[in-house]
Amino acid sequence: MTKNTSSPEKAFVTKVDIPPHFTGKLDGLTFAVKDLIDIARHPTECGNPTWARTHPTAVVHAVCVEQLLTEGARCLGKTVTDELAYSLIGQNHFCGTPLNTKAPDRVPGGSSSGSASVVASGLVDFALGTDTGGSVRVPASNCGIFGYRSTHGRISVAGVNPFAPTFDTIGVLAKDAETLTKVISVLAPNTGTLNEKQREVWVLDDIVAICDEEVQKAFEGIVGSVQHTSLSDILGVPTTYKELWEAYVVLQCTEIWSTLGAWVEDQQPEFGPVTHNSFHNIAKNADRKKIQNWICYREWFAEKIRGFTSKQGVLCFPTTPSIAPLIDTVGTSPSARTSGDYYPRALAIDAISGFSRAPQISLPLMTVSEAPVGLSLLGEPGTDQALVQLASSKGYKYKR
Amino acid sequence: MTKNTSSPEKAFVTKVDIPPHFTGKLDGLTFAVKDLIDIARHPTECGNPTWARTHPTAVVHAVCVEQLLTEGARCLGKTVTDELAYSLIGQNHFCGTPLNTKAPDRVPGGSSSGSASVVASGLVDFALGTDTGGSVRVPASNCGIFGYRSTHGRISVAGVNPFAPTFDTIGVLAKDAETLTKVISVLAPNTGTLNEKQREVWVLDDIVAICDEEVQKAFEGIVGSVQHTSLSDILGVPTTYKELWEAYVVLQCTEIWSTLGAWVEDQQPEFGPVTHNSFHNIAKNADRKKIQNWICYREWFAEKIRGFTSKQGVLCFPTTPSIAPLIDTVGTSPSARTSGDYYPRALAIDAISGFSRAPQISLPLMTVSEAPVGLSLLGEPGTDQALVQLASSKGYKYKR
Repeated sequence: MTKNTSSPEKAFVTKVDIPPHFTGKLDGLTFAVKDLIDIARHPTECGNPTWARTHPTAVVHAVCVEQLLTEGARCLGKTVTDELAYSLIGQNHFCGTPLNTKAPDRVPGGSSSGSASVVASGLVDFALGTDTGGSVRVPASNCGIFGYRSTHGRISVAGVNPFAPTFDTIGVLAKDAETLTKVISVLAPNTGTLNEKQREVWVLDDIVAICDEEVQKAFEGIVGSVQHTSLSDILGVPTTYKELWEAYVVLQCTEIWSTLGAWVEDQQPEFGPVTHNSFHNIAKNADRKKIQNWICYREWFAEKIRGFTSKQGVLCFPTTPSIAPLIDTVGTSPSARTSGDYYPRALAIDAISGFSRAPQISLPLMTVSEAPVGLSLLGEPGTDQALVQLASSKGYKYKR
Repeated sequence: MTKNTSSPEKAFVTKVDIPPHFTGKLDGLTFAVKDLIDIARHPTECGNPTWARTHPTAVVHAVCVEQLLTEGARCLGKTVTDELAYSLIGQNHFCGTPLNTKAPDRVPGGSSSGSASVVASGLVDFALGTDTGGSVRVPASNCGIFGYRSTHGRISVAGVNPFAPTFDTIGVLAKDAETLTKVISVLAPNTGTLNEKQREVWVLDDIVAICDEEVQKAFEGIVGSVQHTSLSDILGVPTTYKELWEAYVVLQCTEIWSTLGAWVEDQQPEFGPVTHNSFHNIAKNADRKKIQNWICYREWFAEKIRGFTSKQGVLCFPTTPSIAPLIDTVGTSPSARTSGDYYPRALAIDAISGFSRAPQISLPLMTVSEAPVGLSLLGEPGTDQALVQLASSKGYKYKR
């Protein structure tokens, strides 16, 4: 069994020391920034050498970084990302695999792999990531820390490299609920309200059922006495994770190729083998003429989820279908990473908030075979801050 | 008085003939695409020669273009845009000024100038534009056609050049309400519901009051018997258009410089004099450290508008504070275009939907001094289709 023995520091691609602009709500807190997000006078390399070579150095900080500096936080570095954000695994062919401190024989998860790693190692208090199809939630779950995907469109992506715009969001990885609560109050102000009804917690039974058996057991042991529903019940028709996964892949890949295809074809970038396959075989070959059917599906799905979360309460399910894959099992072969249906199941779970543009918080509450797994709460769009407060009030507090 | 005698055809930067993928809801309709939006195998020049030279040719259509082709529409060309979408005027230093057919001595409005021009000239049935701070609504108002700004984040911007991401939206210019209704049903499915209460129309008196007197008179003559409110009433504190304008400029400019600043500094592009000033003096010099205050302001404002439109009804006001400026008065000097406070007033009116991420429809209902002016309806986010249907049901139908 391969154990990642690299230093926690290697999760940084570069270290900086940018003092806060002013004092504020984040006084005394340190943070790191995924290398898909601009820091002034540093290249935004997006984890790929051809990208770095073909793009100019950032002249200003991304808007979300300005927000944190304005409120008193100090920036300590930029962190490793999967190439162009295109993976949930957390292994970069060029930058290596950031250490998963709590499970060193397992991958950290991606694409915000370095951001999760430096938080889990205690090198910073929190870190910025981006989450399109799970890129903050999956590494948070794998590394045993708090993770937050924001309501789509709520936090500015100006100065952040686009990938699949209707799914792209800013997210945060944090050491504890108190830190995350403060950071969300800065990045997504005015998202603090859930009425009494909306504070009910509902487990999605059909999502729990697609998780590994040991994750199901751990989940049942921790949720306590809550109400139960299912995606099929909410949608009003039977559904499967394969349907969500198929819809997500076509929607995401069509957007990815519109966003990055011209650069790929023009530059023929040097990619690691997995990323090469993702762009040249998967994104490029999406059946674009099917997009309208899946857009209609997505908006129908979104309306059902919004209807439920606005009237009934928040949805609860494991963040990932299993603990992080072993480093040995994913390797660098494009086919290996889908072994055991890990990838389709993870993407399907992540697509619930993706489709519905809803905020989601992953809490480091479970341990299975000595590795962490997250428990997620998903709420109505625009209730980001209330969601993390709800998690705390329900006693979903992380204890190291 | 300068009269634009250029041919209507010059509003195209290139003509194409792309047949639909399938038959569908848009059978028989033709459209054009602003040259900020990708058409496969054509450069997306964004109205600027340096941009064209430094970016690869698009390899696929933008997602929104695929949606239209899938549903039976035929694409006939790409249209002139203000450079990088950065103006509400509609004069491009390199491509010229697209003809405003109904008022040839006046500017067409921008930045979707060519898209408005080809629709008003009858060369296509509808056209795609983008609207960040008014770039569809202003040319619709100036040219006497229908204009639609979508709910933010609802229509994919994959394959569309970014400008200020929390404000960037896809919009449509159309010859009539029936065409617009069909196009919205394709681009923004599942946005068709307004309850009885939400169908009330409320005039924003303080917005009407900042319009030219002759526009106020025309507006009062056309709205009929509706209810009255004001921005100050909805916000619960007195406000002025200068406050909205200041907030909008800081928010937009901070995002613009994060999005395009690195390219501007790296390439030192050839710009027309107005665009040069906009990038090098306005966007670059925004006080980025103030961004957090204005983000909090924007989200507070958005919540108030959403609260009103979700419970009370749609907001109604003139789309622009005056008829289109005369070509002579705007010229190519950076200072001229703000004469008579036209620009701050127009940006302030446009910022209402910008801040609140709300859909807005501009209807070609007014004529002042023989030039068109639009009347706007603004609704709750996610009610795009219902909004255009409401306009039709209220008798706000355009008659040539």
